Amino acid sequence: MRYKHLAIAFLLAIPGAGFSQTNSISGFGETSSKQEATIEGQFDGNLSAQNISQYIKEMSARPHHVGSPGGKQVAEYILNKFKSWGYDAKIESFFVLFPTPKERVLEMTAPTKFKAGLKEMPLKEDATSGQAAEQLPTYNCWSADGDVTGQLVFVNYGVPEDYEMLERLGIDVKGKIVIAKYGHSWRGIKPKVAQEHGAIGCIIYSDPADDGYFQGDVYPKGAYKNETGVQRGSVLDMPIYPGDPLTPGSGAVKDAKRLDQKEALNLLKIPVLPISYKDALPLLKALEGEVAPESWRGALPITYHVGPGKATVHLKLSFDWQIRELRDVIAKMPGSDFPDQWVIRGNHHDAWVNGASDPLSGQASMLEEARSLSVMAKSGWKPKRTIIFCAWDGEEPGLLGSTEWAEEHWDELQDKAVTYINTDASGRGFLYAEGSHALEGFVNEIARDITDPQTKISVLDRRRARDIVDAGSDSKKKELIGKKTISIGAMGSGSDYSPFIQHLGISSLNYGYGGEDGGGEYHSIYDSYDDYRRFKDPTFEYGVALAKTAGHSAIRLANCEMLPFDFRTFFTTVKGYANDLISMSDQMRENTELENQIISDQQYKYAADPTEKIQAPSPKSEVPFLNFSNLQNSIEDLDKTTSSLSEAISKAKTSSTKKDQINKSLYQAEQKLLTDAGLPRRPWYKHTIYAPGLYTGYGVKTLPGIREAIEQRNWKEAQQQIEIAANIISKFNAYLKSVTQQIQ
Amino acid sequence: MRYKHLAIAFLLAIPGAGFSQTNSISGFGETSSKQEATIEGQFDGNLSAQNISQYIKEMSARPHHVGSPGGKQVAEYILNKFKSWGYDAKIESFFVLFPTPKERVLEMTAPTKFKAGLKEMPLKEDATSGQAAEQLPTYNCWSADGDVTGQLVFVNYGVPEDYEMLERLGIDVKGKIVIAKYGHSWRGIKPKVAQEHGAIGCIIYSDPADDGYFQGDVYPKGAYKNETGVQRGSVLDMPIYPGDPLTPGSGAVKDAKRLDQKEALNLLKIPVLPISYKDALPLLKALEGEVAPESWRGALPITYHVGPGKATVHLKLSFDWQIRELRDVIAKMPGSDFPDQWVIRGNHHDAWVNGASDPLSGQASMLEEARSLSVMAKSGWKPKRTIIFCAWDGEEPGLLGSTEWAEEHWDELQDKAVTYINTDASGRGFLYAEGSHALEGFVNEIARDITDPQTKISVLDRRRARDIVDAGSDSKKKELIGKKTISIGAMGSGSDYSPFIQHLGISSLNYGYGGEDGGGEYHSIYDSYDDYRRFKDPTFEYGVALAKTAGHSAIRLANCEMLPFDFRTFFTTVKGYANDLISMSDQMRENTELENQIISDQQYKYAADPTEKIQAPSPKSEVPFLNFSNLQNSIEDLDKTTSSLSEAISKAKTSSTKKDQINKSLYQAEQKLLTDAGLPRRPWYKHTIYAPGLYTGYGVKTLPGIREAIEQRNWKEAQQQIEIAANIISKFNAYLKSVTQQIQ
Repeated sequence: MRYKHLAIAFLLAIPGAGFSQTNSISGFGETSSKQEATIEGQFDGNLSAQNISQYIKEMSARPHHVGSPGGKQVAEYILNKFKSWGYDAKIESFFVLFPTPKERVLEMTAPTKFKAGLKEMPLKEDATSGQAAEQLPTYNCWSADGDVTGQLVFVNYGVPEDYEMLERLGIDVKGKIVIAKYGHSWRGIKPKVAQEHGAIGCIIYSDPADDGYFQGDVYPKGAYKNETGVQRGSVLDMPIYPGDPLTPGSGAVKDAKRLDQKEALNLLKIPVLPISYKDALPLLKALEGEVAPESWRGALPITYHVGPGKATVHLKLSFDWQIRELRDVIAKMPGSDFPDQWVIRGNHHDAWVNGASDPLSGQASMLEEARSLSVMAKSGWKPKRTIIFCAWDGEEPGLLGSTEWAEEHWDELQDKAVTYINTDASGRGFLYAEGSHALEGFVNEIARDITDPQTKISVLDRRRARDIVDAGSDSKKKELIGKKTISIGAMGSGSDYSPFIQHLGISSLNYGYGGEDGGGEYHSIYDSYDDYRRFKDPTFEYGVALAKTAGHSAIRLANCEMLPFDFRTFFTTVKGYANDLISMSDQMRENTELENQIISDQQYKYAADPTEKIQAPSPKSEVPFLNFSNLQNSIEDLDKTTSSLSEAISKAKTSSTKKDQINKSLYQAEQKLLTDAGLPRRPWYKHTIYAPGLYTGYGVKTLPGIREAIEQRNWKEAQQQIEIAANIISKFNAYLKSVTQQIQ
Repeated sequence: MRYKHLAIAFLLAIPGAGFSQTNSISGFGETSSKQEATIEGQFDGNLSAQNISQYIKEMSARPHHVGSPGGKQVAEYILNKFKSWGYDAKIESFFVLFPTPKERVLEMTAPTKFKAGLKEMPLKEDATSGQAAEQLPTYNCWSADGDVTGQLVFVNYGVPEDYEMLERLGIDVKGKIVIAKYGHSWRGIKPKVAQEHGAIGCIIYSDPADDGYFQGDVYPKGAYKNETGVQRGSVLDMPIYPGDPLTPGSGAVKDAKRLDQKEALNLLKIPVLPISYKDALPLLKALEGEVAPESWRGALPITYHVGPGKATVHLKLSFDWQIRELRDVIAKMPGSDFPDQWVIRGNHHDAWVNGASDPLSGQASMLEEARSLSVMAKSGWKPKRTIIFCAWDGEEPGLLGSTEWAEEHWDELQDKAVTYINTDASGRGFLYAEGSHALEGFVNEIARDITDPQTKISVLDRRRARDIVDAGSDSKKKELIGKKTISIGAMGSGSDYSPFIQHLGISSLNYGYGGEDGGGEYHSIYDSYDDYRRFKDPTFEYGVALAKTAGHSAIRLANCEMLPFDFRTFFTTVKGYANDLISMSDQMRENTELENQIISDQQYKYAADPTEKIQAPSPKSEVPFLNFSNLQNSIEDLDKTTSSLSEAISKAKTSSTKKDQINKSLYQAEQKLLTDAGLPRRPWYKHTIYAPGLYTGYGVKTLPGIREAIEQRNWKEAQQQIEIAANIISKFNAYLKSVTQQIQ
């Protein structure tokens, strides 16, 4: 077997076609680069697509949400695997609030009677789809209990700008029940914004335009959502804080001090329920009033109206609000040289139902990485730094397992954690990478050295090809062609990296493959092994590619002499964010002035059809000139500092002990970007550069304190946040200078 | 009654609020401006919304297509009206080919059987919808006879770029039957392009995304197309030439020399049939193969596939190819001072079925204009120039009545016609105006002096408000705010102005109101009085506004001292067209270079999903630098010439006889923009500035010879056409100079 693998490695050793001996690796010397390449070759040789398939099949055999028998079984399955491979592994438990449905009723009471089925159809083509007894019913976790009846209003995607349009249409949702489409924001934003506008209930449905037959053939003929499919999911207000709502900032251990449920600031007060497009159709068809604006309309065969009118619905939901046991599986492979420097690799194991894709595709890759390392360890190899594998529980309801663990171990993590490497659902297609921008060059080297299973070019070149082809303008295409690298995304939320980077300031990476694995199985009973092997990654070769991507990252970070943090990329990226904010505020100023003039000239009034309800938008407050100079100066200082640091690192000829100290200084640098006070109105989020948006959810806001203040037109706060960010970046700059001096 | 009208005119005489005595009128002196305003006030006072409603109701009482008993009846109705009002009126007949359906069969033969209904549903809410015996069945006029069976392929809108995508998908329509959506081009382009690609038949359907429930509630609940509605219409290749296919360039009088049908270059060789979305659904649902690109998909509740596959259709069509009598109604009011200078006002009277909107809304306004003038004439008023009203027959099949008349009287028209003023279907909303750009200022003065029925501001200000609000960018909005005028559109085709401007070089205008009269009745049995009064112009006040717009235009042109042609607007407009062509060719060059590089770098290949069929686009020929200098110089010369002419006109103190000569020189100027040879491959079209697009149909192409050569990447022809246009514009410049000298 070994011979065959080496032969393949040799064949692939051509320039630009995947792994190559000729590429130098940052953080390693010339000799150690070659050794590292050999080690990675061995690591890759151990990986098996068949194993990944088998792990997914076994772990997705039954539903395994938080607190379920299946959940316990999966945690133990993972624990036993780690133990069998020789890891120091254990289950670490937390005790968290987790509501499950007791009663779910949705019915239309006027103008005609209709009772929603609220049931996904089992299919003979999908072996696990009929496990009704163990499946969580379709629901949104953290909906409030409620029994409400009201007129129905269609609110498009239910994001703030949709309510601006409703205001122009003279429609108030106060005392009404809203129905919103899934999409265009994280789901939790929809009931939150509805609640802020006085709605008494919220229904979310998957429109076939976004998630159904408009996209492609529906399951089981094709991958897309059939008429009964429903997206479950959390509606915790995670942009306030993730994790157990009752223990913000500290680990939910057995005897932890807990808030009263009413004190938890991230819990909704109104009931919310997700439904299928089959259940949504009669409701939407019954709506009257204005025809919905064109961009609001979906692919159901009806005229979309906004309401309100005679259409009235009754929504009754109650939940079993229990404290349940979370089971994080933690497995360590101690480092030979720097056991107190931890490379942490994580992926959750809990699912809404069977979860073959989400989360088991990433979990299976992680297990295969762990197995491969264990094979190498058995032949005597050790990583220089400690590698810790974490299989999180409770990610789906709100990153519970990772957040509680990170909160519980915060001081040790801030001392020891080099980087947190996350994966989650993954499939066939292109590499997606996001993370700390000091690691952008590192990610490019990782991607350069991995071969795409389908095209046999590097996953870097493949992703670059897609970026070039998909670029929206010729100028953007030219820019991307000129650049030989890919950019990594900034981190918002939506998976377990959030507590590490945003709460603790631990540099993080998140990897996945996708873009050729479209479908509608997400958070439904159809996220099954049968679906996965047909539509997601049929050969499981992308599972292997993901194991290589995360695995090489872990091995390089664990073995390198100097950690590959390059703050020059951080500097250029953050400078770009600041420039973006400056031009955004300039554009807002010009646009506000122009629109206010158009409004005061009554052009909206005269352009409108007098027989329709739509009114002119309201004038907006004028945009003052903000003083960005302190921010600009502090960022500009980074130019020289980061260059000097980079130069010093490349010339460093220091002792091993000193390198250990320098490496520690490098991996702790990101913590200097935290503010003690945290972001306005959400102190749990402490990172000044990256945060999920208060009104986008998963979607990132960069320089979030400033950006969101500008977006909310809170000019005073915007100026305050500019000074806070400038101050933090200045301190960060001073810190990097001191690291440079430490090296020289 | 008169007093009341004067009172209203007084109330409206506030600045910017419609007709005002204080506005000066170009072409009139200070005193005559006031007289003209008084005359227009009298004209307006005579107009009655009730009359317009009545004309529409009476003329739409039964189907009245070319050659039908209803058509003869409508022609005689109009003739009798003109005669009763004292006009010198007659019917002028032509004899044209006009095919009507004998047999129509569309059926799916595999994978399941389905026979299309091909029948619009009569409705109790629509009094004339049940007149089946006299209705033309749903068909495309000028389809070839044919009996074909073939695999079905969905081709989106069936325009050239859709076939580029089909090529990338590896799909050839040769020997197959295509199904295309209505929209995004004139309908005749779809079978023409299908035929060019080897298809043996063509089906066109109205997708509910473009024309049906996606747009709004369907008829009779709302105005939009119900599931049985079908858009009839011509598929004559009008961009080659309009009019009787057998008599291009000459009038189809009884004993005219006629081509053999096979020689007519604008007739299709394949059968084509329009169908409803109810009939299209089973066909589209049966398609297999690739899922259609996202932009191709419509609003039917299916996954759109492209085919081909098992889905096979049989299309059998035969027609009764008869020569039929066309009846143009021509009515004259001779001019008192310049009887040989003709202001021509036209609107067609034939319809596909009952045609309340198309064409009777415009026809009714025209009749009311004629009646109002007759009232004034009875009290002794006369226009200085002759006004001729033309109610055209046979517009729907291909501008037959207007083209044959213009071709028959071409020499007299080029001698005497001052301007042709056209209207057609019109409704509620905003003024639309297109025409010769030397009349842009004239149109602005007309629009300045007419009050919008709903908002009571001028129709100029209302249209400006809409342009500002709808502008796509802040910079465009600023530009429009800075400009106090509206732009008039360039003329393509689609109504009866085409022979006048594009074949004879007679300056033309086309007016309509719309934008608040959406619906799906176009060319269906539902274009009825019942539909019109509910959804189009319920109070018929926009019919009055249209009568004022066209009527004031006719009266001003008939009565002015100096004709209000201002070639400075022509200069700036044509300079804009030329600049647009230059930047278009520059962008094409850069884009071609970039795309060819991306193709040769194989980025499309690597960005594509290997499991899908889509291939990279083919590389394109490089774009040479064209020499635009002669065109630029010839246009630039117009700057000074048109300013001098304008100055000379404003200072002109010449005798009445000389003014007569000068006016004639002014109105004949547009003829100097014709080329004898006509446009490449379509000599009937002689105007170098405006033409309908060979592959857009109705849509205009400005500087068409150059623009289409560039679009077709025919660089040699592009350069030739640049020289031709430059030469014509130089001659035009010399002509304007001589007119200036004539004045001084």
